[in-house]
Amino acid sequence: MKSGFAGAILALVGAASASAADKPPMPEPSLEFVFEEEVLLAQSVTPGTTPLGGRNIIPITGGTFSGPGISGAVMPGGWDWQLIRPDRCVQLKADYFLKTDDGVVINIVNTATACRDAQGKPVPVRTHAVFEAPNGKYDWLNRQTFIGALVPGDAKVPSVRIRFYRVN
Amino acid sequence: MKSGFAGAILALVGAASASAADKPPMPEPSLEFVFEEEVLLAQSVTPGTTPLGGRNIIPITGGTFSGPGISGAVMPGGWDWQLIRPDRCVQLKADYFLKTDDGVVINIVNTATACRDAQGKPVPVRTHAVFEAPNGKYDWLNRQTFIGALVPGDAKVPSVRIRFYRVN
Amino acid sequence: MKSGFAGAILALVGAASASAADKPPMPEPSLEFVFEEEVLLAQSVTPGTTPLGGRNIIPITGGTFSGPGISGAVMPGGWDWQLIRPDRCVQLKADYFLKTDDGVVINIVNTATACRDAQGKPVPVRTHAVFEAPNGKYDWLNRQTFIGALVPGDAKVPSVRIRFYRVN
Amino acid sequence: MKSGFAGAILALVGAASASAADKPPMPEPSLEFVFEEEVLLAQSVTPGTTPLGGRNIIPITGGTFSGPGISGAVMPGGWDWQLIRPDRCVQLKADYFLKTDDGVVINIVNTATACRDAQGKPVPVRTHAVFEAPNGKYDWLNRQTFIGALVPGDAKVPSVRIRFYRVN
Repeated sequence: MKSGFAGAILALVGAASASAADKPPMPEPSLEFVFEEEVLLAQSVTPGTTPLGGRNIIPITGGTFSGPGISGAVMPGGWDWQLIRPDRCVQLKADYFLKTDDGVVINIVNTATACRDAQGKPVPVRTHAVFEAPNGKYDWLNRQTFIGALVPGDAKVPSVRIRFYRVN
Repeated sequence: MKSGFAGAILALVGAASASAADKPPMPEPSLEFVFEEEVLLAQSVTPGTTPLGGRNIIPITGGTFSGPGISGAVMPGGWDWQLIRPDRCVQLKADYFLKTDDGVVINIVNTATACRDAQGKPVPVRTHAVFEAPNGKYDWLNRQTFIGALVPGDAKVPSVRIRFYRVN
Repeated sequence: MKSGFAGAILALVGAASASAADKPPMPEPSLEFVFEEEVLLAQSVTPGTTPLGGRNIIPITGGTFSGPGISGAVMPGGWDWQLIRPDRCVQLKADYFLKTDDGVVINIVNTATACRDAQGKPVPVRTHAVFEAPNGKYDWLNRQTFIGALVPGDAKVPSVRIRFYRVN
Repeated sequence: MKSGFAGAILALVGAASASAADKPPMPEPSLEFVFEEEVLLAQSVTPGTTPLGGRNIIPITGGTFSGPGISGAVMPGGWDWQLIRPDRCVQLKADYFLKTDDGVVINIVNTATACRDAQGKPVPVRTHAVFEAPNGKYDWLNRQTFIGALVPGDAKVPSVRIRFYRVN
């Protein structure tokens, strides 16, 4: 077992070498739009109440996505697996795949907690997305933190629209 | 098994009832500062290379946090469990507890991918934080998406400073 | 914050009250067959190599399952999400749903590491299955540990056969 | 994107080439003892009820383990993170590290559901353990499925004893 003062992350962020006086001010994070999805959904299936809470499945049947330098289709398969909690919130976990127009398959696991406030009004739904893309053109998706903004879709079938942003 | 058109999330976001024309424009997400942590760290422990990649452990030994309406201590225990990937990135997962000044214990699982760019320069580290707080005063932490900005700490011992933001 | 000597698990297993002399000898665990699945698969899709390793998707298209007091169909949807590791192993994670003949929907997350030995011979594949069933007739699936034995299927299409056992 | 008939797991288990007639009978899985742990625990900390259920933390303070060809210490740090469910069950997740006598650090994530039966009597607690060991002497821990049998410990402080078995 090797053990050392400077862990990988400390080295990465420069902790080992910089004195407090040298340090740059902490930069404010900001959001940069990367692409928008329209996700088509099937009728929900409701397993019912388990020891964790109410469970609901919304199958993902297809869709499209598009943004600067990236576009393609939402692959059919996967679902949004929902946990209905006692605090006026629904916990969402959607695990599925995107296929770019040039044939690259990318996994996305998109999670959120969708709540109503004390007056029963829906709070805007913000997601956290983890992408796993093959090494190459789209591997920037593996390297930063992404969030999404989810709203009802415009399609004639049940759908949602999600705009994804990189956290810079 | 019950099955229905409007799944919980569609109902929550109003998809079942609104026509496209009725829909409000998609609001842009924004970031709102919630609190800042200083996390104290012990020397790293390096298990070595496993089938998933290089592994590194940075134990969490304490710290403090403070923001509008919330402050307290980082409980000793837990660690940042790092995966050193072949793409100049380190995957971070820190799982630990906060204890507020009024005695509430809150779990935090804070994940990030910390990378160097092609020139070897560190990219700012942005995290995704999932909180689990008991019902009550701090349960707003259970109900939205949060991100963090991580930089080296100012303490005399190894440390990191993380500023957390709610995604509105 | 409440804090106490006897945590829930210690209380459950009787640690707080029993002296060593009182304790029953540790029972040996044993395996009890619960049901067998035949899972039908589509052609695999290969995203390629990501920072975690090689990735492969095998979609689940249907199937059947049957055992004492339980039988039904494997719901189409979901997939086996595989990670090809450098140590002659493939890490498997299959997340899908079963629907019993009496209409109950049950989630299964079945994981395994399928390896070849140093001579290149496949090691028998044993899985760990986590079920989430609604409260009621099949909720015994929520309450114990289950493992599976996976072999190639007998169907005319690509398939696997998995026999599940409860660990008593 | 490459796509093909024989996914990695089918190839591993020989599905692509064997006809039903050729196939060996499915071997019954069996359990082989690998090592026993004694895990020392601190007083539990109770965050209280969250949207997922009751939460309890039992810190891990040390211990020992020993079996054929492997022995060492349980590293202090980590905890058993418990979810008290409404169905007379407690869901356990203990994430910690072992250090062998020859200095190898191994991660263990040990999960279980510990229940009482309808008469209030505890059901024997069986766990599922996932190990992550560095490549080398102990990497057989990365390559198969393991279960554990958990009982109260014999130490003068709160403790549990867990016997681990490989599923062959």
